[in-house]
Amino acid sequence: MRREKAVVLLSGGLDSATVLRIALRKYECFCVIFDYGQKHRVELKSAVKIARSAGCGYDIIKINLPWGGSSLLKKKTNLPEKNKLPLTYVPGRNTIFLSFALSLAEARKASAIFIGANALDYPGYPDCRPKYIEQWNRLIKSLGLKIKVFAPLVKLSKKQIIRLGVKLGVPYELTWSCYAGGKKPCLKCDSCRFRQKGFAEAGLKDPALG
Amino acid sequence: MRREKAVVLLSGGLDSATVLRIALRKYECFCVIFDYGQKHRVELKSAVKIARSAGCGYDIIKINLPWGGSSLLKKKTNLPEKNKLPLTYVPGRNTIFLSFALSLAEARKASAIFIGANALDYPGYPDCRPKYIEQWNRLIKSLGLKIKVFAPLVKLSKKQIIRLGVKLGVPYELTWSCYAGGKKPCLKCDSCRFRQKGFAEAGLKDPALG
Repeated sequence: MRREKAVVLLSGGLDSATVLRIALRKYECFCVIFDYGQKHRVELKSAVKIARSAGCGYDIIKINLPWGGSSLLKKKTNLPEKNKLPLTYVPGRNTIFLSFALSLAEARKASAIFIGANALDYPGYPDCRPKYIEQWNRLIKSLGLKIKVFAPLVKLSKKQIIRLGVKLGVPYELTWSCYAGGKKPCLKCDSCRFRQKGFAEAGLKDPALG
Repeated sequence: MRREKAVVLLSGGLDSATVLRIALRKYECFCVIFDYGQKHRVELKSAVKIARSAGCGYDIIKINLPWGGSSLLKKKTNLPEKNKLPLTYVPGRNTIFLSFALSLAEARKASAIFIGANALDYPGYPDCRPKYIEQWNRLIKSLGLKIKVFAPLVKLSKKQIIRLGVKLGVPYELTWSCYAGGKKPCLKCDSCRFRQKGFAEAGLKDPALG
């Protein structure tokens, strides 16, 4: 029997790399990678490596967000090292990503979409919460489609994600988390700090730091 | 008092041109036009003319839908003249369009999004139905945003739309409906036929046919 198909949103980061391995346990996976003008473009290379290492096909979708609105985008200059408000939040980002994933899933007859959204790391990101994912599933149902969005990490801590990923053989050495846009992780931005804390709490060394 | 802002999805066609005039009665409008690889690219020029004629700003968003899946896209060759199944349906199109509109509305603090979706012309398009629009509003609410999607034409016939548009001064001579991709309307495709029928039933001459 042929396996069902899934579309997996891949960023190059730790979370979506873990999600891909989760999805692969049940589905034939196809990855979608977004080039949306992020400063940390280097994550795109990581995403491609991660897709290839899993033997999955992928598309890189170039998206132009001319209105900016986030410190993550090239148009803005300052990346806050410690956010009170989530300045790294990109308006509508996950909504745009999921809409492309839905289009792809529909065109390729996939029955699942996987996203690495996580509510704990970024409590200020409204598009990373379980309620939002549930509403996506209602939206898709209203279209008469039998496609479901899964966010398997949505309630896990970074430590739990890393422990799960290690069991599943996620190649964390290929992943990229830093938001700062340099050639090496800055180890200062929110994303770097969450990652370091996660590995520390999991009692593991981050293989990406060589 | 400053007027509230709205984002209006503009295709260059008759419906969205009418929606823009409806939105302008209450809102300061900004238009979004999508270049998604449609064969009938000529509609983009119409959309720009319509935005300008209304004195509105606009963005043209280039979208790459690498997976195709519709007879409207350049990758496919045949445009059916009379569809039983809606072969012109582009998977996820309105979902992608609305997701960009949402991003823009959020970034620019607009409180409304207008879309020319119409359930009567294209009963086979699941993303043109009232239920789908309602679900979008629930999705946006789940994000904690005070933005509402309006589809004022969703239950109107083409005749009703045209009569309303004429009252509002919609420049129908600038609009483009044909799906076939030629320099003149083919008058055979679904979209041309709906338009002709609409003007005929409204007892009006189509000003775009000179």
